[in-house]
Amino acid sequence: MQRLRYFHFPLYLILFTSSLAAQPVVVQRYDSVTNKIVREALSSNTSFDNLHSLCTTIGHRISGSPQAAQAVEWAKKKMEEYGFDNVHLEPVMVPRWVRGTVEEAYLMYSSGRRESLKITTLGGSVGTPPEGITAEIVEVKSFDELNRLGEKAKGKIVFFNRPMDRKQISTFAAYGGAVDQRGGGAIMAARAGGVAALVRSMTTRIDDFPHTGGMGYVDTVKKVPGIAISTLQAERISKLLAQGEQLKIHFKLSAQTQPDVESFNVVGELTGTEKPKEVIVIGGHLDSWDIGQGAHDDGAGCVQSIEVLRILKKLGLKPKRTIRAVMFMNEENGLRGGIGYAAKDRPGEKHIAAIESDEGGFMPRGFGIADSAAFRKIAPWAPLFASFGADLIRYGGGGADISPMGPKGIPLMSLIVDTHRYFDSHHSENDNLTAVNERELALGAAAMAILTYVMAQEGL
Amino acid sequence: MQRLRYFHFPLYLILFTSSLAAQPVVVQRYDSVTNKIVREALSSNTSFDNLHSLCTTIGHRISGSPQAAQAVEWAKKKMEEYGFDNVHLEPVMVPRWVRGTVEEAYLMYSSGRRESLKITTLGGSVGTPPEGITAEIVEVKSFDELNRLGEKAKGKIVFFNRPMDRKQISTFAAYGGAVDQRGGGAIMAARAGGVAALVRSMTTRIDDFPHTGGMGYVDTVKKVPGIAISTLQAERISKLLAQGEQLKIHFKLSAQTQPDVESFNVVGELTGTEKPKEVIVIGGHLDSWDIGQGAHDDGAGCVQSIEVLRILKKLGLKPKRTIRAVMFMNEENGLRGGIGYAAKDRPGEKHIAAIESDEGGFMPRGFGIADSAAFRKIAPWAPLFASFGADLIRYGGGGADISPMGPKGIPLMSLIVDTHRYFDSHHSENDNLTAVNERELALGAAAMAILTYVMAQEGL
Repeated sequence: MQRLRYFHFPLYLILFTSSLAAQPVVVQRYDSVTNKIVREALSSNTSFDNLHSLCTTIGHRISGSPQAAQAVEWAKKKMEEYGFDNVHLEPVMVPRWVRGTVEEAYLMYSSGRRESLKITTLGGSVGTPPEGITAEIVEVKSFDELNRLGEKAKGKIVFFNRPMDRKQISTFAAYGGAVDQRGGGAIMAARAGGVAALVRSMTTRIDDFPHTGGMGYVDTVKKVPGIAISTLQAERISKLLAQGEQLKIHFKLSAQTQPDVESFNVVGELTGTEKPKEVIVIGGHLDSWDIGQGAHDDGAGCVQSIEVLRILKKLGLKPKRTIRAVMFMNEENGLRGGIGYAAKDRPGEKHIAAIESDEGGFMPRGFGIADSAAFRKIAPWAPLFASFGADLIRYGGGGADISPMGPKGIPLMSLIVDTHRYFDSHHSENDNLTAVNERELALGAAAMAILTYVMAQEGL
Repeated sequence: MQRLRYFHFPLYLILFTSSLAAQPVVVQRYDSVTNKIVREALSSNTSFDNLHSLCTTIGHRISGSPQAAQAVEWAKKKMEEYGFDNVHLEPVMVPRWVRGTVEEAYLMYSSGRRESLKITTLGGSVGTPPEGITAEIVEVKSFDELNRLGEKAKGKIVFFNRPMDRKQISTFAAYGGAVDQRGGGAIMAARAGGVAALVRSMTTRIDDFPHTGGMGYVDTVKKVPGIAISTLQAERISKLLAQGEQLKIHFKLSAQTQPDVESFNVVGELTGTEKPKEVIVIGGHLDSWDIGQGAHDDGAGCVQSIEVLRILKKLGLKPKRTIRAVMFMNEENGLRGGIGYAAKDRPGEKHIAAIESDEGGFMPRGFGIADSAAFRKIAPWAPLFASFGADLIRYGGGGADISPMGPKGIPLMSLIVDTHRYFDSHHSENDNLTAVNERELALGAAAMAILTYVMAQEGL
């Protein structure tokens, strides 16, 4: 329960609260524009049509892959077709991890019975020797528990099976409380003498889809493979182990990390009419994991960023400050695009804000603002978002891709959406078009367009 | 834009507004209980498990069908198993409309080409003669346009093709602006000399699923059949007609209305410990249309109502006033359950509120309260729902099943949810389990449990 963590600023409060007496002017000034933006977003269906195009003509697009290169071209062409200003690519070197063609696993019972087990290789994992790995499973719920196993972990496949806490209201908090197993499981397994990390998928649902995601290694510890199984399989294997069954897994992976390759952030803008050197960045990431279609993660954020510019242009709304859409490359396994964007020298430019949409194309609820001055300025604008229920202005926010801009003092913001469905599809085969509702996606774009346009006119 | 149609009552406002100074006590009093209710709803997953059971063991359940009878037994047994008080059936006579086994249609081109057309019979429609109906299509967007056609409508299948207005923020408003075509199309078509009504499905999406729903007749006008086609087919046929193609449809239906049969509202309660004769009704409707699984409409409302009682009982929360879950029968095509419940004599009882959940098992946003005194009392409780974003307390609300209680002065209330996805599945094959997210469903139940319990303790 965190009731006091945020504030609503309804119009009637603003009207009657003297310290905010100047704000209704802003709300009144943009009320009509807001209405037009929402109608254009809902009626045109363009954000969903663009997501459809990205997801079906290209599909998933992991950094360094041919599909990622196609997505770069797709985004550039799309923005050129809309006639945005200054459409260009900004090169970045990105890691190239490939799953390869071999990914198979069998569950082996003490009786000799053997059954196929659906797995997914974790992103960044090494492969196995050609003959694969065959070892007994030992289950733990935490790194502490693993450490207490001592010798018992030696030679084993360490099965990390602590579920995401479904009681948490925030699914991201639940994810944060479990994802150490995926991120650090292989290191900890190897440190304990294990031969691989087997991770329960990161979702609160019990279903049969394995979810991938990034995992790490450190130079001082042997690199052992990391794989994930579905929550359904995790529950089943756990039950069998509890019954005393001595289960082994045999698996083969051909994953490998290849040399870095060149890729690109894709950039387009509406150049400001009065203060073109003051820039508001809006963005999402163009890369995805290599299963599913990367629809919510983060095709949604990309098409919404394009949609913001398209809507403003279509409505003839000329921003006084520059609004720049950036489709970042390599959020999932390196953040090279975000780091590269922030590091690039841009003479004379001043970024006044950066907004990321990377929590899925779900129903927007408002914005997180990780800058106290920006928060104080924007919070009274909340009534502009109330007609579609996105008037939550919360202190705190940001996004992975824009995070490298934080240390430069640039106010970071995030589109807040309803994330109860996010981990149903996250990093899995289910992250495809059918998981996205066109109206929710469009309203997210509308919310971003309103905030962005008002900031461009009013400054921060 | 309807920004001023509702009010938020955030905690800080309450703290600083003298007329509401007494309210934080209520919020503080139930803060800890609220937290427990939400955790129980999210962790147990019972509402979804029950929906799964209803949708997969029974499926759709139109009034008067064997499946509706099974659903009555299912709900009664479920509530008995949980040990609720006073579980019983209340008989009502319901209409029995059957689609029958024949439902086929062909689109016929002037060239003689003929292709199968996916249709759904509208609920309540008469069938066709055994040889079917074959007639030319004439398209209109409104009853006015139909009237202006004059002789041209004679002998034709009148194609009502005014889309739901996707620019509307409220999907229910968009529905309300188009559903006259489905409800009154057959009457108006017959009045103009037409032989049938062909209706564009009620959804903002362009897809290939026909949606059914209720339609009416009047005694003074000939009864002609009503059918619906998908939005995709509606767009296509409209285009062909605009190109001058003289399209005919041949279709056969075996639908018929049979004599009324006996069915039941299913009732269970937690009897109040202090004022058992003061009753709060919570409910949804147990019947559905006869395609899909009736998951959102309104299996969701039923399992949420059961879940409210289950959660309170599980947590040992004994309501001072009686909380009564009612699974109404026959909302879709007669409202006999709602009418019957309101008409029944209940000596000594006083209903203090009735809450309906019938807008789908989507993310809850708050409550609509169609009673000014109740609204003033409940609005300051909003902070109890803020942790999961359901703190919108809006004046106005209700639900079809509880509406007959309105004229008796009983305060009517509705669970407000995000309805952007509602018409994607509404009354179609898509209204099945996969369209429901277990966390959103559970949070809706939690919201209802909190409101209901606080009302039971505090009165209205």
